[in-house]
Amino acid sequence: MRTVDELCRDADQRDAQADPLDALRDAFAPGAPGTIYLDSNSIGPMPRAAPRRMAGLLEDGWRVARREGWNLRGPSGHWLEQPRLLGAALARVLGAHADDVLVCDSTSINHFKLLCHGLAASGRNVIVIERDVFPTNRYAAQGAAERTGAQLRTIAGIEDLDDALAAGDVGVVSLSHVDYRSSRRLDMAGVSARIRARGALSLWDLSHSAGAVDVALRANGADMAVGSGYKYLCGGPGAPSFLYLHPRWRDAASPVLRGWMGHADAFAFHPDYEPAPGIARFLSGTPAVLANSAFAAAAELWRQVDPAALDARHRALTDWLIEALDEQCSELGIEVASPRAHRERGGHVSLRFAAAAALARAMIAEGVILSARQPDALRLAVHPLTTRYAELARAVAAMRRILSDGSWRDPRFAADAN
Amino acid sequence: MRTVDELCRDADQRDAQADPLDALRDAFAPGAPGTIYLDSNSIGPMPRAAPRRMAGLLEDGWRVARREGWNLRGPSGHWLEQPRLLGAALARVLGAHADDVLVCDSTSINHFKLLCHGLAASGRNVIVIERDVFPTNRYAAQGAAERTGAQLRTIAGIEDLDDALAAGDVGVVSLSHVDYRSSRRLDMAGVSARIRARGALSLWDLSHSAGAVDVALRANGADMAVGSGYKYLCGGPGAPSFLYLHPRWRDAASPVLRGWMGHADAFAFHPDYEPAPGIARFLSGTPAVLANSAFAAAAELWRQVDPAALDARHRALTDWLIEALDEQCSELGIEVASPRAHRERGGHVSLRFAAAAALARAMIAEGVILSARQPDALRLAVHPLTTRYAELARAVAAMRRILSDGSWRDPRFAADAN
Repeated sequence: MRTVDELCRDADQRDAQADPLDALRDAFAPGAPGTIYLDSNSIGPMPRAAPRRMAGLLEDGWRVARREGWNLRGPSGHWLEQPRLLGAALARVLGAHADDVLVCDSTSINHFKLLCHGLAASGRNVIVIERDVFPTNRYAAQGAAERTGAQLRTIAGIEDLDDALAAGDVGVVSLSHVDYRSSRRLDMAGVSARIRARGALSLWDLSHSAGAVDVALRANGADMAVGSGYKYLCGGPGAPSFLYLHPRWRDAASPVLRGWMGHADAFAFHPDYEPAPGIARFLSGTPAVLANSAFAAAAELWRQVDPAALDARHRALTDWLIEALDEQCSELGIEVASPRAHRERGGHVSLRFAAAAALARAMIAEGVILSARQPDALRLAVHPLTTRYAELARAVAAMRRILSDGSWRDPRFAADAN
Repeated sequence: MRTVDELCRDADQRDAQADPLDALRDAFAPGAPGTIYLDSNSIGPMPRAAPRRMAGLLEDGWRVARREGWNLRGPSGHWLEQPRLLGAALARVLGAHADDVLVCDSTSINHFKLLCHGLAASGRNVIVIERDVFPTNRYAAQGAAERTGAQLRTIAGIEDLDDALAAGDVGVVSLSHVDYRSSRRLDMAGVSARIRARGALSLWDLSHSAGAVDVALRANGADMAVGSGYKYLCGGPGAPSFLYLHPRWRDAASPVLRGWMGHADAFAFHPDYEPAPGIARFLSGTPAVLANSAFAAAAELWRQVDPAALDARHRALTDWLIEALDEQCSELGIEVASPRAHRERGGHVSLRFAAAAALARAMIAEGVILSARQPDALRLAVHPLTTRYAELARAVAAMRRILSDGSWRDPRFAADAN
């Protein structure tokens, strides 16, 4: 086993090697000194340009232009076009075309929109969803099903998918690309093909993969996708979500959630709904101008990111992290719960530890920001554009120290201390 | 007829008189020098505190706290509680109780949620909506109806309401409290009572009244309401919308748009949906933290506003404006199209002029920001917390000048010049 010094030296050497994504690291604001953020699965890092953009919008757009803001151009403008411009800017890292993606509303709402669209497009009446998916997706599906008389078919895991599809009655299959606890990543290409072969549409939640690894939506044959804007995509706290739809399904049906921004001619004020051509029909209300402006700072960066380079860097960082955790912490009761193969993992590395919540609190008290999920998952989320090997080394060293001296047992880290 | 100087002197004298709301004017940032904003029906004025709040949130919440932001308190915190805290802060000016109101999502989406809720709560299958309502509300109703098999019954105007209700099969009636063109305001108390007497629920869109006049939701017996956050309520460009539900209907049914933020125990990650007690069940996805923070600057001010004083000031300003327009501009082809009685008017004063769009452009070129709507409506929106009589006098003088010298006929103000 390497000493901590040796581990840190190895990390420093790796950080010293040139990487095609290095230039983008300086585009993000540093966090608090002495703090290591392994939490991009909650809130991604802030682009340096975000405060300037927001201050400009408040001053030039809100204070000065007001109504005329709707006609502004430049960094404080494009209020009406933002959902499509942001979608186009994210398209490269999502492996999509510019016209396949919108940024609007929340992941829960976009998930609802596309569940309904999948049923309408397929002309079928059954939604398949995993039992242990992130619960908000189940709630959206339960609401969509109850209201429309559709049937919800729950599967315990992906291994039950073929049985669920066997009757040929399934309209849409909603899946987490990456499990929010274990970080297990599904084979999007293979699963999407199986779903299509049965006449159903695939709907992927990319919240724990988009912006971290190469999701390649078009190449993998995904029909529909949604995902969080505020995690790895760095859109800012509570940022709008993105929505992807393969063009083969675009004109299949009118959206269920309709509003003037999705109308073919919004400012003609027609009494009857006529869907806009293409994906814009999935817009509904007035754009979230302030939130979109913050997101634009990150979207400008995503235009510059080659998803293959992003994936390679994420793989190198997380492979190294897993090796270091195995080496330094496995004898102290930590077990890597994520799959070992990078193509089977998402943005975070997940560990198994009986007192995960207490260990997370002890790590946070040491300045290493990570998270726990019931019952025993500890999550270390690596952002390929900002995380350095030296930070991973210090996080592993902190975990080894806390496990060795048992300080996570301190009563202030107990569950009811929060 | 008074001379322009006499008109301005009268205005100055009125501005010099003390008003209980004067103190709040200084809480708003001034607009561009020499510009008069009569456009709060598009974007309300910016509270001075908004940029400071937003900069603090970006720095303390996003850059430094990240995941820990979810646990922050103080002005950059309360990320999860914001939708309810903002709702509670708006309750006074809406004439509601703190637990009746949420701030979340867009008006279009909240309208959809409450249309579906009204059908479920009433156990009926018919939506009544006006033909010439702001179109996004019709689109939402068309989507809700198509998807759920409900029937949409269109009325030409409020005079057809009783006929539409006669069969006793109506579940929900969606109405604009104030017409977005003419500014005609409906009698909320009387109409709500007629709707309830037939076993249906009323759903009011307050976009052109909330924050401008006294809407008194509880006193007027409204069942449900939605409205824009970015107009008179000053939540910022594209701000989230508000949603009101009378407690008698709160537990009537589970929402159709469901998400983890509306679950009884969001962080227990239960696989099955159980609605939160009370109005919180109408939340769905993660809160729009950045947008909510901007809105909080205005919400703090609304806590201090007596709706009766707001209404009185709006009445005084707009009555004076109408009198001045009659006096200075009626002989030049301008006709006041809004009702004369303040209780029958909403936030803006609407004028009729054949070339309304050209006149609006000519006024904007003179620094008076207002708006036109097809075919012939010119809208002057007065914000009772910020608009001064002197501004109204200068706007009327500018309109008289432009009408007198015919400068609105300049080709650069023609429809196709934009």
